[in-house]
Amino acid sequence: MQPKLTVHSVEPALAGDPARRVLSLPGTFAMHLGGELRDVQIAYETWGKLAPDHGNVLLLFTGLSPSAHAASSPADPTPGWWEEMLGPGKPLDTQRFHVVCVNSLGSCFGSTGPSSLNPVTGKAYALGFPTLTVEDIAAAAHATLLALGIRRVRAVIGASLGGMSALAFALLFPGAAEVLVSLSSATHSEPFAIAVRSLQRELIRSDGAWQGGNYPPGDGPREGMRLARKLGMMSYRSASEWLERFGRERADSAQHEPFGIEFEVESYLESRARAFVGGFDANSYLYLSRAMDLFDAAEHGGTVDKAFKRLKLRMALVAGVETDILFPLHQQRALADALQRTGIETQYLPLASKQGHDSFLVDMDRFRPAVGDYLAAL
Amino acid sequence: MQPKLTVHSVEPALAGDPARRVLSLPGTFAMHLGGELRDVQIAYETWGKLAPDHGNVLLLFTGLSPSAHAASSPADPTPGWWEEMLGPGKPLDTQRFHVVCVNSLGSCFGSTGPSSLNPVTGKAYALGFPTLTVEDIAAAAHATLLALGIRRVRAVIGASLGGMSALAFALLFPGAAEVLVSLSSATHSEPFAIAVRSLQRELIRSDGAWQGGNYPPGDGPREGMRLARKLGMMSYRSASEWLERFGRERADSAQHEPFGIEFEVESYLESRARAFVGGFDANSYLYLSRAMDLFDAAEHGGTVDKAFKRLKLRMALVAGVETDILFPLHQQRALADALQRTGIETQYLPLASKQGHDSFLVDMDRFRPAVGDYLAAL
Repeated sequence: MQPKLTVHSVEPALAGDPARRVLSLPGTFAMHLGGELRDVQIAYETWGKLAPDHGNVLLLFTGLSPSAHAASSPADPTPGWWEEMLGPGKPLDTQRFHVVCVNSLGSCFGSTGPSSLNPVTGKAYALGFPTLTVEDIAAAAHATLLALGIRRVRAVIGASLGGMSALAFALLFPGAAEVLVSLSSATHSEPFAIAVRSLQRELIRSDGAWQGGNYPPGDGPREGMRLARKLGMMSYRSASEWLERFGRERADSAQHEPFGIEFEVESYLESRARAFVGGFDANSYLYLSRAMDLFDAAEHGGTVDKAFKRLKLRMALVAGVETDILFPLHQQRALADALQRTGIETQYLPLASKQGHDSFLVDMDRFRPAVGDYLAAL
Repeated sequence: MQPKLTVHSVEPALAGDPARRVLSLPGTFAMHLGGELRDVQIAYETWGKLAPDHGNVLLLFTGLSPSAHAASSPADPTPGWWEEMLGPGKPLDTQRFHVVCVNSLGSCFGSTGPSSLNPVTGKAYALGFPTLTVEDIAAAAHATLLALGIRRVRAVIGASLGGMSALAFALLFPGAAEVLVSLSSATHSEPFAIAVRSLQRELIRSDGAWQGGNYPPGDGPREGMRLARKLGMMSYRSASEWLERFGRERADSAQHEPFGIEFEVESYLESRARAFVGGFDANSYLYLSRAMDLFDAAEHGGTVDKAFKRLKLRMALVAGVETDILFPLHQQRALADALQRTGIETQYLPLASKQGHDSFLVDMDRFRPAVGDYLAAL
């Protein structure tokens, strides 16, 4: 499981992503379900000063599609995907903490993934990339921290897939994190979530432009990605939000093509889907999506309770949202209960957000105090 | 609104569908949103004896995809889509009632729809079929009853789209029904349901084999229909049912194609989707699906309450299911409340079924007594 590291080097920032740094982990990275990667690169960003004793680190994992650019910084003033949560005086307070956000292994924003060149063949991995698991994402982040000289973090934090990665990190590297902050995540995926993601993947694979994964670099199944994103939005938001927001409002610019856009909710989905297309590599999407299906913390011991016996967390926060249909609240409760049973001081926080699974990205009035108060008390 | 009928004729039963009869309504059928159809045919089946005073008729509307073959009969012993609900001694008791089930206008099981030949052009209507509404389905059924000499029914009954059709029937033809039985239906579609159906339609339209609706008769977008059916199943069933039924069980025959079937829930969706393909005309699907989006009882008066003032129902039963995400329970409650406010003696019955929207087809232990007791007391 533990990657076999030999040496490492940090590359300078890349043009266009000025705050991003890329760490090279030469040698062999053994994958959780078999196979290996060579010369893995992991992209990351940091905010705040690292304390001399390295005792102020927060490790932040992302959801399926974001990059490591979680927030702006002097080096890169463009807003990040968690801009309101990370910065001076914000919940992930960079006046106090040194925050490290890692682009997941298998993603496409600087970390090694299916679109990366396989050093053995000189061509993109495509479907030659080995099966990716959440454990691999966690292990790559751990290797990155070690390479940066950080052996232990105050808290490992993540939402959605990021929460699974954070939990895998705590399971694989007991003692490497003192506190777990799991937002809108779970110990495993339930069949409804698997079904949604399975159909998303099928929409991508059904697009002829996917070409069995061998599309030209930077190109790919745009229609499949657009359709998959629409389905994604249905699982990320909530029916009650849309009822309040759109009702039966008709679209301003009703299309005149047969069965085209007629209602505002259709127009919204179309614009959200179009904005996503081209910004994310299709094969990375497939691998990361399947990794979420495959994750099951219980496999680290036979049952969740047995698996959790290895945890050396001091405290945990488990927060989720009652309108989440992808990671439903009963899964948050089950995770919190299992942590508590293990003897970890656990806070369970069900939030009344209306925006479903995506609430951690948009319902800042609830998530800011939830996370901020918790981290402030550390 | 009211179809301009001139004469009519009943055709003999068709081979392969021995209990089905087809009524021809020669002349012009004016569509609710404009346009007209000529020489409309409506397929229907009946069960039980018509009382001499015609006072024992139940009119049954179907959901989106069933035919008029709701149950077996001596003429056609194959099981129908509501076999457990309709027959001697069953909730729709054919020892007492004369039940008429109508294949919706726009469908493809004997009633005029997009796959029918346009008598003007001699070719299939395809997208030349005018915009279809739930009101048109109700009006075609009403015309069918009139042609059969039935001016008034004891109850008009329907689930899902069928419930909308039943409500439209009661709104358009006050006094033509004494009782409304609405199951898992609503006065209108909310944006989440519109979004699901919109993406289903897009999956069908995105299949090149759709050819803008001009596919060869009996052929069509099989892949698009298969994918649309998978999405449909996600909205028809419930996450809690699948959790109990599948959990994280792996598929017996895991596919070895990349990102193929791995979990049992994926295998289930695939088999359900394949069973659907080829059995339903794609253009009919598009028209009926959009008709559900478009329906809004409030349009018959400005608000639902004003619209309902025209109703001449004596009683109503409104039943729905707490796990239904397509026609959620709050919509059942709102429908029941509005009927009650109008002065109609209304029974509201929330059912604890686990199978979501489809429960009216499968959770017979709850739906049989719910409907049976109600109709027995008429």
